[in-house]
Amino acid sequence: MKVILTGCAGFIGSNFVDFLLEKGHIVIGIDNLSTGKINFLNEAFDSKNFTLINEDLLNINNYIKYFKNIDLVIHLAANADVKDGVNYPCKDLEQNTIVTSNVLECMRQNKIKKIIFSSTGSIYGEATQIPTPENNSFPIQTSMYGASKLACEGLIQAYCEAYEMQSWIFRFVSILGARYTHGHVYDFYKQLKSNPSNLFILGNGKQTKSYLHIKDCISGVFHGYSHTKQKVNIFNLGVNDYCQVNDSVRWICEALNLNPKLNYSGGDKGWIGDIPFIFLDISKISKIGWTPKFSIKDGIEDTVSFMKKNEWIFEGRT
Amino acid sequence: MKVILTGCAGFIGSNFVDFLLEKGHIVIGIDNLSTGKINFLNEAFDSKNFTLINEDLLNINNYIKYFKNIDLVIHLAANADVKDGVNYPCKDLEQNTIVTSNVLECMRQNKIKKIIFSSTGSIYGEATQIPTPENNSFPIQTSMYGASKLACEGLIQAYCEAYEMQSWIFRFVSILGARYTHGHVYDFYKQLKSNPSNLFILGNGKQTKSYLHIKDCISGVFHGYSHTKQKVNIFNLGVNDYCQVNDSVRWICEALNLNPKLNYSGGDKGWIGDIPFIFLDISKISKIGWTPKFSIKDGIEDTVSFMKKNEWIFEGRT
Repeated sequence: MKVILTGCAGFIGSNFVDFLLEKGHIVIGIDNLSTGKINFLNEAFDSKNFTLINEDLLNINNYIKYFKNIDLVIHLAANADVKDGVNYPCKDLEQNTIVTSNVLECMRQNKIKKIIFSSTGSIYGEATQIPTPENNSFPIQTSMYGASKLACEGLIQAYCEAYEMQSWIFRFVSILGARYTHGHVYDFYKQLKSNPSNLFILGNGKQTKSYLHIKDCISGVFHGYSHTKQKVNIFNLGVNDYCQVNDSVRWICEALNLNPKLNYSGGDKGWIGDIPFIFLDISKISKIGWTPKFSIKDGIEDTVSFMKKNEWIFEGRT
Repeated sequence: MKVILTGCAGFIGSNFVDFLLEKGHIVIGIDNLSTGKINFLNEAFDSKNFTLINEDLLNINNYIKYFKNIDLVIHLAANADVKDGVNYPCKDLEQNTIVTSNVLECMRQNKIKKIIFSSTGSIYGEATQIPTPENNSFPIQTSMYGASKLACEGLIQAYCEAYEMQSWIFRFVSILGARYTHGHVYDFYKQLKSNPSNLFILGNGKQTKSYLHIKDCISGVFHGYSHTKQKVNIFNLGVNDYCQVNDSVRWICEALNLNPKLNYSGGDKGWIGDIPFIFLDISKISKIGWTPKFSIKDGIEDTVSFMKKNEWIFEGRT
């Protein structure tokens, strides 16, 4: 099939591009390279089935022309920096909500009927039920990022109702693995690279989260997409496990063979709007036959291993 | 107190302005008069405590200067035409979501801490529980309007978390009464004015909805605002009753002393994205001492009575 994939130079996007090309699909990738890395597309550029469109998704008129004879849109482009929302309160609205509206408009105007969307476990806010099922009670948002992803989900659902589209919405926990470029492992590694004897940790280290390996993430998305046919298909994606920030710190330090002094900012949240306990119920997608293969510890170790071999990602240059 | 009220020339807005002025508050009303009627502000203009700012809320730079020393923002401005969303898919995003982001930015930049927001029962989509409580399961949107209001709620909640604001979010059923200018009573009255012997009804007439009188709506909002102090306070507002479109048609025809032939478009929905059964659980606000005074039939009759005296509202001119 012919696929448009937004955010194709990002962590999840570039891995997904490689996955699709390997399966023989034709991929048009769109990325403004603001946080995406062109190096992540090195393998993709070897394929005649891949085209990169270097455009900002806010400028719909610059790229709507590529939405012709497309079978599926995989919309992954997003501002993914949750904790910085408080400093840039309109960024998530623009990069996530308005961009998603643009992508949906490209689809509507070209009668493209299928979209896969990367949502987030943050959308549940401080969930009333843990592990949190997809039909948990009406959420209250705690971050601009969560609010923007909620807005995207609502828009996608309304487009599905209005224009006979189909959507597959995946609410991810944090993703780990090769090409990981932001999040706590990145931050800790960067700190330890500049000072191996001290590590500063936001919160009290007891924030409890769940993580999914990038390979499981992609297999989960593709499994959910291939096995469901409702108008709106929503799935949590994660593992049946969680860990504390302190566990993750220990695994990172072990992988780096370091024993830094740990300093904590304190409090049960790492930042304003942080959710102290994220653990998603994955029984809905499990019931249709998907199981993650990697443990959280595997994911942390793979991420550290990737970083060791790719310290250029810390240089802010591609 | 000094209040900014957006959508001040609208149905709910103008009634709210009169209510606030009567209580002695100072009101700065903002309206672009796109659907609002300047005539609705005739009483307000008699008060020295009222100022109208005729600006479009999309143009933040034109009005942010009025957000000085404000105690409370009542944000009612919105595109309220639910059924037309399918024809103008970006209108709700702009008029509701982006405008709400602008209003929140005006508040943040001027350290204004309190906002009342008019949300909607449509936000529950096709609710899993009827009557529908505020904490019903995670909703799936069926209209651009619902999606945009969901986005607004999320934004407001995230601003409350990030900037120590407080919000009072009210999810209304449809509102009836003096200054009503859109919705099924308006549509039916307009039809019957041009042809008293025929009435065309969208759907099968069995769509089941709940309605609230404008006076109860305002008393409910003010009661909720006055009696709760959480960071985010969310209330359904409606009556403990519902009716079918056919009941409403009968009451309208009786009030007009007409007996038209009824023609139906058929199907259980009036339009794409219509929700066939809306009935909100109001026990949360009831528990803190609020009860609606008007029945649905009272509301329909008051609306027809207003229209009889104000047929100018059908002329598309103020």
